Amino acid sequence: MPARPLPTRLGIVAAAGSIPVAVCEAALAKGIEVQVVALKGQASADIARFPHRWVRLGELGGLLGALREARCAELVIVGSLRRPDLRKVGVDFGLIRHLPTILTLTRGGDDTVLKRVVRFFEAQGFTVRGAHEIAPALLAPKGPCGGLAPGDEDERDIAHGFALLAALGPFDVGQAAVIARGHVLAVEAAEGTDEMLKRCAGLKQWGGHKRAGVLVKAPKQGQELRIDMPVVGPRTVELAAAAGLAGIAVMSGQVMIADQAEMVNLADRHKLFVTGADMTV
Amino acid sequence: MPARPLPTRLGIVAAAGSIPVAVCEAALAKGIEVQVVALKGQASADIARFPHRWVRLGELGGLLGALREARCAELVIVGSLRRPDLRKVGVDFGLIRHLPTILTLTRGGDDTVLKRVVRFFEAQGFTVRGAHEIAPALLAPKGPCGGLAPGDEDERDIAHGFALLAALGPFDVGQAAVIARGHVLAVEAAEGTDEMLKRCAGLKQWGGHKRAGVLVKAPKQGQELRIDMPVVGPRTVELAAAAGLAGIAVMSGQVMIADQAEMVNLADRHKLFVTGADMTV
Repeated sequence: MPARPLPTRLGIVAAAGSIPVAVCEAALAKGIEVQVVALKGQASADIARFPHRWVRLGELGGLLGALREARCAELVIVGSLRRPDLRKVGVDFGLIRHLPTILTLTRGGDDTVLKRVVRFFEAQGFTVRGAHEIAPALLAPKGPCGGLAPGDEDERDIAHGFALLAALGPFDVGQAAVIARGHVLAVEAAEGTDEMLKRCAGLKQWGGHKRAGVLVKAPKQGQELRIDMPVVGPRTVELAAAAGLAGIAVMSGQVMIADQAEMVNLADRHKLFVTGADMTV
Repeated sequence: MPARPLPTRLGIVAAAGSIPVAVCEAALAKGIEVQVVALKGQASADIARFPHRWVRLGELGGLLGALREARCAELVIVGSLRRPDLRKVGVDFGLIRHLPTILTLTRGGDDTVLKRVVRFFEAQGFTVRGAHEIAPALLAPKGPCGGLAPGDEDERDIAHGFALLAALGPFDVGQAAVIARGHVLAVEAAEGTDEMLKRCAGLKQWGGHKRAGVLVKAPKQGQELRIDMPVVGPRTVELAAAAGLAGIAVMSGQVMIADQAEMVNLADRHKLFVTGADMTV
């Protein structure tokens, strides 16, 4: 698909983490004006450096209004969504009005829901862009990011892991897995990558003392990459290190790296590799 | 495969749980003399009701000797293996002598290791029988075991779950998974079924309040069923109930049910179904 020209004005619906800030910075660097709609209880306080309005998660009317007032025909929905405090969701009339549509969004696997979120905004007349279209530097490159590279055994674990993730494709599950010496230690489902890594710390194999094993991460088949690209970051390195892993391999160009400089420093310090790999199985 | 005639004397290498006891009882009921070799720190004290000798996990010489003295040409290796306290393994000369062979057993996935354990005993001149050959009543039957049966949504979750387990076949992983309303909540890898169920308690989906979801369990492709058949039991029901699941579906004839009467009572009390299903995908 040839890249569409970038807009001159961009709405940014910002959830948690540093990536919404990175997207704002990348947009400004490209001469794109931004209007942030920051989700309360989710978005980082740093986001207030940019033109913004805070809305609660339930203030869909407020969210759509802010984007329209700022004449944003295109938008990016970006950042991780923490489980909201349901008492603070702050439902507004816009949400009530769109409720029938929204209720249909809650059926099926996660990526279906997110596809429907995109469809909802498109039905409201917006073009939804991926954060990586604005900030391609966030994407995992090909090859090692830090000072270390995977060894032969790691490469075998990486290939095994990516093949496993590919086999899970039809089941809308398996964004990540941990493979150690050809053995599948953990498969991620609804618990998320961090929780999966935490349990790996307790799963060292009998007789295995050396740092070994790889976290592999890639989008699920059919995952809506525009608003739900897999992300790794410094926390991923910390948890992988605590689990005794040798490194992290993500699918290049299809996984975002948050705080890349910090992550790579941390990986080098823990003697972990971080590498972008092609998922060819 | 036509059933081979049962032996008149049988060695039983007993690890943890109630199943070794059930196998002894089934053997005696069939007029088979048993000689138990009970693993210290593993086997239940109940096993002492049968002719037995206690050995530590590292006393391979003692174990082989006990079986030979009792003139057992055939044996069953049964029970769950808890992670041993390495200070109490009690290595004997027999283990040292067989160490080169044993070291080669520790490479590759779990089921490969267990296949090699069988091969080791066969190389020592023993025939290794499956516990279910002696005690077929331990096998999950076809259809519901208790008072409840899966509903339509459960049946879809069961089919989805078994299809997922089948897809994981080539990766030596995925003896169990939890599916709720078409969504894969958890996939078991090295952590085991109990740990997987524990984390499901924290994974209720937003908006999901009713008891829903199914634990599916089946052997991994190529799993060595003679010494490593999947097992469910009362503890499985307790954890599935705590996770808010609607029921448990195991592959009939290929999964053992420990303490079946107790398990079914418990399931009925918690209003969970327990069913044996054909895994046809």
